[in-house]
Amino acid sequence: MPRYKFTLEYHGGGFVGWQRQANGLSVQEVLERALGELEGASVAVQGAGRTDAGVHALAQVAHADLSKDWRPDRLRDALNAWVRPHAVSILQAEQKPTTFEARFSATGRRYVYRILDRRAPPALERGLVWHVPRRLDAQAMNEAAQALVGRHDFTTFRAAECQASGPVRTLDRLDVVRTGDVVEIFADARSFLHHQVRSMVGALHYVGTGKWTRADLAAALAACDRARCAAVAPACGLYLHSVDY
Amino acid sequence: MPRYKFTLEYHGGGFVGWQRQANGLSVQEVLERALGELEGASVAVQGAGRTDAGVHALAQVAHADLSKDWRPDRLRDALNAWVRPHAVSILQAEQKPTTFEARFSATGRRYVYRILDRRAPPALERGLVWHVPRRLDAQAMNEAAQALVGRHDFTTFRAAECQASGPVRTLDRLDVVRTGDVVEIFADARSFLHHQVRSMVGALHYVGTGKWTRADLAAALAACDRARCAAVAPACGLYLHSVDY
Repeated sequence: MPRYKFTLEYHGGGFVGWQRQANGLSVQEVLERALGELEGASVAVQGAGRTDAGVHALAQVAHADLSKDWRPDRLRDALNAWVRPHAVSILQAEQKPTTFEARFSATGRRYVYRILDRRAPPALERGLVWHVPRRLDAQAMNEAAQALVGRHDFTTFRAAECQASGPVRTLDRLDVVRTGDVVEIFADARSFLHHQVRSMVGALHYVGTGKWTRADLAAALAACDRARCAAVAPACGLYLHSVDY
Repeated sequence: MPRYKFTLEYHGGGFVGWQRQANGLSVQEVLERALGELEGASVAVQGAGRTDAGVHALAQVAHADLSKDWRPDRLRDALNAWVRPHAVSILQAEQKPTTFEARFSATGRRYVYRILDRRAPPALERGLVWHVPRRLDAQAMNEAAQALVGRHDFTTFRAAECQASGPVRTLDRLDVVRTGDVVEIFADARSFLHHQVRSMVGALHYVGTGKWTRADLAAALAACDRARCAAVAPACGLYLHSVDY
């Protein structure tokens, strides 16, 4: 059973998220169905990370075991033909040793969060950005963000329903970069807690509007208390950017 | 009657184009309806240029005469509330002297054409790019494009239904720039003929795939014959980038 690694782009708007669920269509189900059509049998797919409903991916990674050897480019093209009605695109298929695991072999994950920071709502990027009509101080956000970098108990920035065994994570990078009316937040870590990036972005939004200082953000982190978190940023601005192995 | 200049962003996908038409909803009609709601009377709007069905705008310009003085930011916000269900956003409203004409005062127009040049179809940018699965030689395209720059009879690159009085235009810039899998074509001129940019992009696509050389492109231009044009590039990749005054 040769193992294949898949790199996928998707628009999260039409899905209940990455993970297969009873209450609606997931990206995992779209990929599993397409592989099922190729194989004539059911195929299980494992992803590098679960993205929530509405969250996009520039390069999600998944793996699956197939019954026969495929030329990787043919496999990619065949899968793209099957997933075509859905906003999912297979960027790459690669054969890998069976020791490769999309989730457990990952050594790093990068998310990017996109804010459209202008008075007028988006016409071209609806559902692809968080529209913040009030001008944000991106420099203050970037300075405050550095208080979150490093190894910390991120309980404050963790969803109540998070299934991870513990709240400690090492955040390698949290940078806020303005380019014109677009503010992008880059977050790198080996792994993240549930809602961690959107919770951190929500807190940085408070800093950007002047509601919080860097000290407020640091105090919220130190409190290890979910009730101290800012309003969680909406899903539509979040992108799983890449997964490292 | 104070005159106002409006700068608009829109997603062309859901419209029959900029211009009001009997067979469907136009961007002009959306703006005229919103102004009509504010004024309680019908308002005529004139745009800087007609974009076709499916063509997007980053910064279309239009003007209209209103019955009363508005604070420009309040006018912009009120219009955005009225156009909200549609993929149109008013970026800016400014009061102008009545000598200002969106169409006739314009001294330059810039279009940008976006190609997603990769094997996998777009998931995030469906309807916002032309998907070209075959690798294009962007450098050859850029070199050939220079044969079109300058003052020429553009009959070859002009739609049969073009209403301009003559086929001669001065193309100030035609640059092809690759950034990863995205190939962008920038076209600047005082004014363009109907379908001129999409016709030129179609020809450059032939150059990028090796079907045409720079000499073939120059010969097509010199022929002044619409039948010598390449297949016109699709509307969904074209953006009215900006209008200069």
